[in-house]
Amino acid sequence: MSSAPLYVVGLGPGSPDLLPPRALHALEASQVLIGYQRYLDLLPPDLLCTRRLVRSGMTDEISRCNQALDAVLTGETVSLVCSGDPGVYAMAGLVYELAAERGLVCGPAAGYNALCDSAAVSGIEKAIDIRVVPGIPALCAAAALLGAPLMHDFASLSLSDLLTPWELIEKRAECALAGDFVLVIYNPRSGKRTRQLERVLEMALAERGQQGVIGLVRNAERMEQVVELCRLADFDPARADMLSIIFIGNSQTRLLPDVNGGSNWRLGARMVTPRGYLKKYQAS
Amino acid sequence: MSSAPLYVVGLGPGSPDLLPPRALHALEASQVLIGYQRYLDLLPPDLLCTRRLVRSGMTDEISRCNQALDAVLTGETVSLVCSGDPGVYAMAGLVYELAAERGLVCGPAAGYNALCDSAAVSGIEKAIDIRVVPGIPALCAAAALLGAPLMHDFASLSLSDLLTPWELIEKRAECALAGDFVLVIYNPRSGKRTRQLERVLEMALAERGQQGVIGLVRNAERMEQVVELCRLADFDPARADMLSIIFIGNSQTRLLPDVNGGSNWRLGARMVTPRGYLKKYQAS
Repeated sequence: MSSAPLYVVGLGPGSPDLLPPRALHALEASQVLIGYQRYLDLLPPDLLCTRRLVRSGMTDEISRCNQALDAVLTGETVSLVCSGDPGVYAMAGLVYELAAERGLVCGPAAGYNALCDSAAVSGIEKAIDIRVVPGIPALCAAAALLGAPLMHDFASLSLSDLLTPWELIEKRAECALAGDFVLVIYNPRSGKRTRQLERVLEMALAERGQQGVIGLVRNAERMEQVVELCRLADFDPARADMLSIIFIGNSQTRLLPDVNGGSNWRLGARMVTPRGYLKKYQAS
Repeated sequence: MSSAPLYVVGLGPGSPDLLPPRALHALEASQVLIGYQRYLDLLPPDLLCTRRLVRSGMTDEISRCNQALDAVLTGETVSLVCSGDPGVYAMAGLVYELAAERGLVCGPAAGYNALCDSAAVSGIEKAIDIRVVPGIPALCAAAALLGAPLMHDFASLSLSDLLTPWELIEKRAECALAGDFVLVIYNPRSGKRTRQLERVLEMALAERGQQGVIGLVRNAERMEQVVELCRLADFDPARADMLSIIFIGNSQTRLLPDVNGGSNWRLGARMVTPRGYLKKYQAS
């Protein structure tokens, strides 16, 4: 069994004070850091100076993961770096898939190393120790800024149609809205891909009405952070890009007004989805 | 404006190495820590010794949040402690709702204190500085253990019918399954409430078939952690309780076999939902 671990590390939104110790320790323990250029740039410089770095482009996901597997099989400790949580629209799944394609089996789960010596696993020659280190996903970091939009059932949907047919994305949007889920939208709009978000907003308007609440966060917890919220009728889809995440409230979601009675987040407006405590326990 | 902040802090799954520095700093900066007894017990003892603690029972959510508001209005810095992320089925929303009921407006968002002095907000007498400190939600911590079940669109659903009518919960399960979302289930089963999970499993079997993949994590990252995965046909709902979180895969979710070709997590089996990279970029 390959003894060096392959960490798949989530950096969270990017602010160092939101990086948990386990992720930092994994990065420090690694000889090799592999990731999309933009995410590696979020790391502390002293960490970057003293490790072998493999920077890759945005669409090089397969080669990035294969390089991580190659490195760990030579005995190097590797961190494959993702933003947010490594298990949400990120690299953890692809690493497992590629490992399986190579005929590699995961070693016994971390914390069960004792079993490693047991007869049951003594025959493993090509096992690999993949450890997914969870991080704060973009949807939680962005929600915390907006207020509390995710207090009740929610659905997360990526509008990118690079890997998923638009018909399926549209069906999922329809199902999530019909089920009155709060709808979280990743990758809402790119320079070329603008129609998808417009279509989902049309569907949301039809289901929730003009008074439905919508929030947008761009670059959560990074430089140039933007937080906006408003009624569905007032939302401008051109505000969104690939660095944005959008929250469409459920039928109960409220827009708590700012100090002037408006919807300016900087003046205190917030987006809140009730769980139902007040409805149940208070006659209001 | 009340100058002391009210932090709503997520502890993550409970393991100290998954608590980000921002959460720790908020706890350390607080004179008062308020939370459900079980969550306060997850904190470092030295922190507990030197703060005023307000421990509350599981169903005292409203009084817990009101006590936090009372304390911060007297000028004390307060942390309202939640497990996981404070914005996912936790306390952040209720704090905002109760603050609004009292006629309190949120102060200008953190990082915008300069605006505090502007004419626009000079008239605020009853503003409050609520800061939601995001944490690693249970669904990410549990997914990281199972493998990578959340690599594609997912829906999160609580089966607790204390605050939500069962008809709505059932409809949401139906919509999430029809949309081929990965379905994450919180609060799947209590001592008394057993029928709801059985019903959702029936629906999942009908949509995904017997070979559908399901995973269960109990006490993620805590003592007595349990991780199990199997085919839908083989799942025993009696394994679930209120400390469990369940993942029902989408139609593409795979069960990567363990070293013996079985589904034993401790021997390397994992649950992985493909994003679609291999399908698109490799002729396989």
